[in-house]
Amino acid sequence: MKAWHLTSRPQGLPTIDNFALRDLPDTPLDKDQLRVRNLWLSVDPYMRGRMNDAKSYAASFQLDQPMTGGAIGKVLESRMEGFAPGDLVLHMGGWREGGVIGLDMMPNKLPTALLDAGLPPQTFLHNMGLTGGTAWIGLLRVAAAKPGDTVFVSASAGAVGSAVVQIAKAREMTVIGSAGGAEKCAWVTELGADAAIDYKAAPVLPQLAAALERLGKPGIDVYFDNVGGEHLDAAFATANDFARFAICGMIDVYNDAKPQEMKYLIRTIPARIRMEGFIYTDQFIDCMEEFYADMSGLIASGAVTIRETVHEGIEAAPEAFLGLFSGENIGKMLVRV
Amino acid sequence: MKAWHLTSRPQGLPTIDNFALRDLPDTPLDKDQLRVRNLWLSVDPYMRGRMNDAKSYAASFQLDQPMTGGAIGKVLESRMEGFAPGDLVLHMGGWREGGVIGLDMMPNKLPTALLDAGLPPQTFLHNMGLTGGTAWIGLLRVAAAKPGDTVFVSASAGAVGSAVVQIAKAREMTVIGSAGGAEKCAWVTELGADAAIDYKAAPVLPQLAAALERLGKPGIDVYFDNVGGEHLDAAFATANDFARFAICGMIDVYNDAKPQEMKYLIRTIPARIRMEGFIYTDQFIDCMEEFYADMSGLIASGAVTIRETVHEGIEAAPEAFLGLFSGENIGKMLVRV
Repeated sequence: MKAWHLTSRPQGLPTIDNFALRDLPDTPLDKDQLRVRNLWLSVDPYMRGRMNDAKSYAASFQLDQPMTGGAIGKVLESRMEGFAPGDLVLHMGGWREGGVIGLDMMPNKLPTALLDAGLPPQTFLHNMGLTGGTAWIGLLRVAAAKPGDTVFVSASAGAVGSAVVQIAKAREMTVIGSAGGAEKCAWVTELGADAAIDYKAAPVLPQLAAALERLGKPGIDVYFDNVGGEHLDAAFATANDFARFAICGMIDVYNDAKPQEMKYLIRTIPARIRMEGFIYTDQFIDCMEEFYADMSGLIASGAVTIRETVHEGIEAAPEAFLGLFSGENIGKMLVRV
Repeated sequence: MKAWHLTSRPQGLPTIDNFALRDLPDTPLDKDQLRVRNLWLSVDPYMRGRMNDAKSYAASFQLDQPMTGGAIGKVLESRMEGFAPGDLVLHMGGWREGGVIGLDMMPNKLPTALLDAGLPPQTFLHNMGLTGGTAWIGLLRVAAAKPGDTVFVSASAGAVGSAVVQIAKAREMTVIGSAGGAEKCAWVTELGADAAIDYKAAPVLPQLAAALERLGKPGIDVYFDNVGGEHLDAAFATANDFARFAICGMIDVYNDAKPQEMKYLIRTIPARIRMEGFIYTDQFIDCMEEFYADMSGLIASGAVTIRETVHEGIEAAPEAFLGLFSGENIGKMLVRV
């Protein structure tokens, strides 16, 4: 089976030349190992950070080693207790067709009751997993958003952002989403957002101020940040007193070493803004049960809908990943292998 | 009696021409009013914001009206219950020699037990009041600093910063303070700081990194911000995981409309930094009793020392205020009238 290897560290935006698809050795199973055939691979913006040789919350990818990431696989062979051939597992051995998976890849059997009820397995790579969990934790736990709040979400047509919009609407909040382009904005409105801002059409701040004005709201109570930069500054500019910012991503600056110019950061003090960075894996275990129950209910009721941008075949993984940075995806970007 | 009036709104740094000293009308007392003779006036950086015609947490000063601010006065005449001639009161009718004080100026009798124990009355304008309370609330409540933490404090020779240094050392934290110039840095070290950085001598970040290295600390757990800008960015650069930033002031940018260039803001996510703006008056009532008991104990034991930069006479008030922005003061800037 083949796997994508990182062959050089990208400077700025990665290119296809940073990656190579190579055969994995075919080794017999040791104890506590599974052999899997992957069905779905996740590509996520946080992986860009792992391509640098710098200390971060997720370990750096090693050069000339297979990359890792979320994946859904089917067990072919098992020497791990509790797993049998045919089981569907969520694990971290992504970026490859499959192969040997140890405990370090954190395999988890997908809950059969939810699969039997019709939940597609790949949703555990998005709404029922990393991206939906990130949305739920960031909005409800980190930002402590509550009914009646006005919520601003950047990258609201992305996997995390679209889940934020829908969870917020299900909780009776007013939601303003930003996205790039008319098609994405139309989808964000379809998801229930009260206003959608096209950040490619005009600067963010005047559009955000105009949307608040139209909605009769003095400012935002919550900002869910996926992009940083201009969006974050617009959130500082329009924050109500005691606003909470959940900082989930800054995709605008992942590939870009230049400083962010923050004109309204100073409003932190008069508006008593609380800004907090968070990572899904820190908090997920503590709230997993509540999250699964709540999110599967929201999906079943139609309050949270599933939308995917799918690239086909293992060969397409790098182009799917690069598409995240050109804003290609609507909903969760996936690779079907 | 004379009072300083704001006669024009400053653009950038204020000048003496923005102010005029004018006579107050001599009116008889109404019910719920006091006539006071002020002894001490406070000048504080937050007053700069009140000179703008913009909504903020503290109301704008009105043009051609007497300015207000913290003051200690002696009651000359009283038609307010609980106050008698000779009482010392803390009130908001500053920037003037004295005059008529109503309930809107929030007069409070100074606690006679503490005065009798030798606490100088003007300390209720600094360590026992706005600046000491701001330090105590920001460090212990907002940033939740605890023994063993590494704390970075900007403007650590200022009224708030010097109190932060001393409270942190009394609580067994490691403290790095920044200040402008060798004299101030020497004083910060005298206060007990483990390292002092002269931000006028060299850029902040390399000095902060070197101080951490010398102290054998991997980074900072707490940042107490009085200045913003380069200091804040250096704090983002060196933050340990789950660091807390209490944002008290950004004196670097109060007079300056240009954006802050934040190169390390993106570390909010991998380091899960929590940054929170706060204002003394939001939280003071809730913790006043605990604060008075704790702070008077720290002063009595010598753990917190009193240092003042005093300008003499009502005429000197604007120059005392302007001195805050040129970094003139060591400890609390006061005017004795």
